[in-house]
Amino acid sequence: MIVVLKANPDPEQLENLTTWLTGQGITIHSSLGVNNLVLGLVGDTSVIDMDLVKSLDIVEDVKRIREPYKNANRKFHPDDMIVDVGGVKIGGGHFVIIAGPCSIETEAQMKEVALGVRDGGAALLRGGAFKPRTSPYAFQGLGGNGIDLLIKAKKASGLPVVTEIMEIGQLKYFEEVDMIQVGARNMQNFQLLKELGRVDRPILLKRGMANTIDELLMSAEYIMAGGNESVVLCERGIRTFETSTRNTLDISAIPVLKKKTHLPVIVDPSHAAGMAELVKPLALAATAAGADGLMIEVHNDPQHALCDGAQSLTPERFAEVAKAIFALRPFAMESAEMSQ
Amino acid sequence: MIVVLKANPDPEQLENLTTWLTGQGITIHSSLGVNNLVLGLVGDTSVIDMDLVKSLDIVEDVKRIREPYKNANRKFHPDDMIVDVGGVKIGGGHFVIIAGPCSIETEAQMKEVALGVRDGGAALLRGGAFKPRTSPYAFQGLGGNGIDLLIKAKKASGLPVVTEIMEIGQLKYFEEVDMIQVGARNMQNFQLLKELGRVDRPILLKRGMANTIDELLMSAEYIMAGGNESVVLCERGIRTFETSTRNTLDISAIPVLKKKTHLPVIVDPSHAAGMAELVKPLALAATAAGADGLMIEVHNDPQHALCDGAQSLTPERFAEVAKAIFALRPFAMESAEMSQ
Amino acid sequence: MIVVLKANPDPEQLENLTTWLTGQGITIHSSLGVNNLVLGLVGDTSVIDMDLVKSLDIVEDVKRIREPYKNANRKFHPDDMIVDVGGVKIGGGHFVIIAGPCSIETEAQMKEVALGVRDGGAALLRGGAFKPRTSPYAFQGLGGNGIDLLIKAKKASGLPVVTEIMEIGQLKYFEEVDMIQVGARNMQNFQLLKELGRVDRPILLKRGMANTIDELLMSAEYIMAGGNESVVLCERGIRTFETSTRNTLDISAIPVLKKKTHLPVIVDPSHAAGMAELVKPLALAATAAGADGLMIEVHNDPQHALCDGAQSLTPERFAEVAKAIFALRPFAMESAEMSQ
Amino acid sequence: MIVVLKANPDPEQLENLTTWLTGQGITIHSSLGVNNLVLGLVGDTSVIDMDLVKSLDIVEDVKRIREPYKNANRKFHPDDMIVDVGGVKIGGGHFVIIAGPCSIETEAQMKEVALGVRDGGAALLRGGAFKPRTSPYAFQGLGGNGIDLLIKAKKASGLPVVTEIMEIGQLKYFEEVDMIQVGARNMQNFQLLKELGRVDRPILLKRGMANTIDELLMSAEYIMAGGNESVVLCERGIRTFETSTRNTLDISAIPVLKKKTHLPVIVDPSHAAGMAELVKPLALAATAAGADGLMIEVHNDPQHALCDGAQSLTPERFAEVAKAIFALRPFAMESAEMSQ
Repeated sequence: MIVVLKANPDPEQLENLTTWLTGQGITIHSSLGVNNLVLGLVGDTSVIDMDLVKSLDIVEDVKRIREPYKNANRKFHPDDMIVDVGGVKIGGGHFVIIAGPCSIETEAQMKEVALGVRDGGAALLRGGAFKPRTSPYAFQGLGGNGIDLLIKAKKASGLPVVTEIMEIGQLKYFEEVDMIQVGARNMQNFQLLKELGRVDRPILLKRGMANTIDELLMSAEYIMAGGNESVVLCERGIRTFETSTRNTLDISAIPVLKKKTHLPVIVDPSHAAGMAELVKPLALAATAAGADGLMIEVHNDPQHALCDGAQSLTPERFAEVAKAIFALRPFAMESAEMSQ
Repeated sequence: MIVVLKANPDPEQLENLTTWLTGQGITIHSSLGVNNLVLGLVGDTSVIDMDLVKSLDIVEDVKRIREPYKNANRKFHPDDMIVDVGGVKIGGGHFVIIAGPCSIETEAQMKEVALGVRDGGAALLRGGAFKPRTSPYAFQGLGGNGIDLLIKAKKASGLPVVTEIMEIGQLKYFEEVDMIQVGARNMQNFQLLKELGRVDRPILLKRGMANTIDELLMSAEYIMAGGNESVVLCERGIRTFETSTRNTLDISAIPVLKKKTHLPVIVDPSHAAGMAELVKPLALAATAAGADGLMIEVHNDPQHALCDGAQSLTPERFAEVAKAIFALRPFAMESAEMSQ
Repeated sequence: MIVVLKANPDPEQLENLTTWLTGQGITIHSSLGVNNLVLGLVGDTSVIDMDLVKSLDIVEDVKRIREPYKNANRKFHPDDMIVDVGGVKIGGGHFVIIAGPCSIETEAQMKEVALGVRDGGAALLRGGAFKPRTSPYAFQGLGGNGIDLLIKAKKASGLPVVTEIMEIGQLKYFEEVDMIQVGARNMQNFQLLKELGRVDRPILLKRGMANTIDELLMSAEYIMAGGNESVVLCERGIRTFETSTRNTLDISAIPVLKKKTHLPVIVDPSHAAGMAELVKPLALAATAAGADGLMIEVHNDPQHALCDGAQSLTPERFAEVAKAIFALRPFAMESAEMSQ
Repeated sequence: MIVVLKANPDPEQLENLTTWLTGQGITIHSSLGVNNLVLGLVGDTSVIDMDLVKSLDIVEDVKRIREPYKNANRKFHPDDMIVDVGGVKIGGGHFVIIAGPCSIETEAQMKEVALGVRDGGAALLRGGAFKPRTSPYAFQGLGGNGIDLLIKAKKASGLPVVTEIMEIGQLKYFEEVDMIQVGARNMQNFQLLKELGRVDRPILLKRGMANTIDELLMSAEYIMAGGNESVVLCERGIRTFETSTRNTLDISAIPVLKKKTHLPVIVDPSHAAGMAELVKPLALAATAAGADGLMIEVHNDPQHALCDGAQSLTPERFAEVAKAIFALRPFAMESAEMSQ
């Protein structure tokens, strides 16, 4: 961490600052610029509150050099992490497609979609039981009953399952769920992240629509600091001024994340675009850029889906898209190329 | 709601659509454009899933005309709502300043700040006990013990108190809390909003840093739909490309909200700016634009605050700022001017 | 265009509005909603000033249904446009890589890079002579002398050349230039666009960093309305809150543009990312998503480039990247899939 | 400037770097962190290309400490600059309102508006003759004839006038124009800025809708570096994800700019909001936050204005708004408070 002082700092305040810093185990290297004294802080600066230092009268600016995350940092974990989801591996060269409907509706629907996506190439089944909806008047999901239907589809298809949790009180329904999803709106629900750090299941952590890549890594750090290292990151579009798509898929997040962290990175093209016809080009792009997997919405009757129908494919169309993805995959960016 | 069809729509699909819409109590007025049939939907369109209609093969575009919120809509509630917080009124011409530290630290600190801000002009005391922090290694607040210290300061100063809840399990600590704050990161924590709809205390709902004004109103609608109509909205800055301030205070949100809703609107200049020196100009601006109140961070020793020190004022500086605010207030925009 | 009136509109004002609209050749279909009269305007609404109608006392909202561009609209030009640049075709299945340095520096540099990129797979040579630089103290390009060096490199390599124009007065230097580039900062320099509409050379139009896809199409419309239909669009990243990359490449812009327009769409991964190591993954992603080409910065000595060194590749590294692009290209999204 | 090296940098490359830096007059202070060598560069670092240094193999990160602008920097010019526009002073405590129509239409209109705004409290008259319009099919302004009408209104009212230039070739029409406006879309039209640096008239420089505060200052620097120090900055809203207003007025830009620069700062609430009803609250807010002036659109018949009618006031309404502004102004933030 670099601390740039204002010209002619008050000597007493300067001594207070250096005493406080050294009391926290930090060594200080000072050097004199043209007008400013610059302090270089050496040691474990992740404990130093950057904003607090910035607020001091004698300080002009503070710049962080080291990332404030450790468990999620590739510098300390050079090899790709491989996350195991009910026997299916993600990361380190293992590429998977997660597919299924936005909302779980009926047993027949789930079973039909599960068999359809399995035959189309999906390795994991998704389906929403607890649904975060912007409007209180919209369908909110089947809850625990929905998870029961998901588990039935898991048994029918043999596919491990992924579904979203919205608050820790729902964890009791997740016993047979293979991977627990944290949605974009909960990426900074720190209470939930802390609790999931104590769970023995892999976590699928979606990036918030206005969160930076570094904030996503800090949220992964919350889970990992609690002891659960099985975290898969998911880019699903960020909010920008452009309105022709629901969100703007941040395709660069894939190589940037692969460089910063050893955790697997997947992409959700369905939510990023908000239009079924954009799923294929975005899925191909994410695969080419080196994603470790994709999460794609599939519905057996998109015209009558209760939720997010606009972004779903049929199982038949999914199979075509998956075929194109697997054909392109051998020509994609290798994770190893970015992490060097 | 307006549904624009593609040229030459399939007649069977068109009949399916109109049957489905009329089955939901919607009357349809169709009119023919140059190339397109346009359907005008009349009735309670808040139940219609716009994205679903948009996903149909025969549909080119869908545009909503009516806002999908009712309880929070000024059209149905023309008079300003006045929210009562432990005897202190906000809205409808009642202007209040809420002040206090970001984090509750010690009994002495809270008492000193409480008396300081009361004498400086604050009508409500704030202080954080449960703290959402980006890093798992940062100070996370004193929790229930913090609320005890806040209640002691309430008794010492006579000021009603406001503090943030992060999950519904914490509600047991809030018995003597006069107003419950939902932080920006929880604005779309819909489970929490639903639970707060059943609580008998006013809610201070902060806008998420990437949420639109309409989404803020939908989140207020969640609380109000549950029966709790005492909601105060708080603008605290949105995330943009500009990096010279922590967030960009959306000053226009004040008059836009005053027009769309009858709920009181306050502004938090401390978090918007992230710098103590910007608090005064932004507080004056928000007052001038017609805000019903302000929430300002005050700390008795900003240089040693455990959290967000960079944005806090001392009680002495707060008193000067409050004096300037009260002097300017008679010349501010009137709520009635916007709501007409 | 749909005009939603306020409840109980003043009859005289309503008659004024309908008279004014019909005077512009518009037919009006009115229909009554629950509380509002809705006017459907039929005819050539591109001449109607939407903001003006919105400003009327009796109007609540106005929504446009037809796109306000015609020449650039695929609806009126279903087949892909193929643009010819000095004999090299772009679009309609013709995929090209444009490569070269950010700034033209010396004759030896240009010649070496030109031969290098040609042998590596580039079909067009780029190089900047007039450079838009944020700082007045930064290197501003060699100007007309730079274009002379570019033409020498064109002759040595046989590659047609592309270079940027910053104001119409520079056109005299562009006689032997095969394609004229309009930079992102000039995307809405309407005077320049109008002049380029009268030029007999294809235009490479880069998207502004804060411009929507529809605004990009309106800028293309400016050029095409003047008679020059040879426009190639270039996505090069937009400005968002994310700071880990210089800009956020809007990968969705490729399929969205392919659907809206018949013009070729290329991508500049070098400027989008601002880091040489991201060029390969973004180039592969753009190719997979269906781009008609790429523009890649290449420099023979990136460590000493006078401008934008951070985003350049060496010719050797470029050849590797190009090889990977050409290998992946047969598995990419087809333009025809999006335009249906 | 701080340069953080990667662990174990190649000694030869490190020597190349230090030799290159010292050759540019830079002194280097190096200090060793836990894993990294950190170089502190002392001297005139505005000439160093930060991106180039960042691109070197041995460099991990580069951070700038000094602002790269000098002429526009308050550190070197502590006193407020006062700009004289045809005898009317702006800045240093002098507050002015600039008013007039978006587009100049007829002699009668301009004369009526000029007298109206003068009597309502405006000190300067504005009117657009060269109009940047998104659509090539929209009214593009009266050009040189428009400026003639503006000069007639100047003579009739006695108010000095401001109007926009779009390219330097138009300068011949500006002989009797008192202040030349550079529009938001031309903020980074560097050729135009350079030319205006050689003009003897004050420049009103509007912030681009996606430009940072620092970029605005760099554009001012372009003009000032050419010798023209009379620059007034104008905040007019930035582009964000929020769609309920046309742009998001960045109210914080006022105090931030007042701290960074000695140049006067005014605000355009009409373009920021895009709605006439928001002009008053935003004008009051900008005044409260310490703006040195306002630019407000006024039209004698907003319902029939040819351009931007949605954001114009009548002269009568303007007079009311101006009265409210002048009443509030004595209670506004003082520039001196921010610049300390």
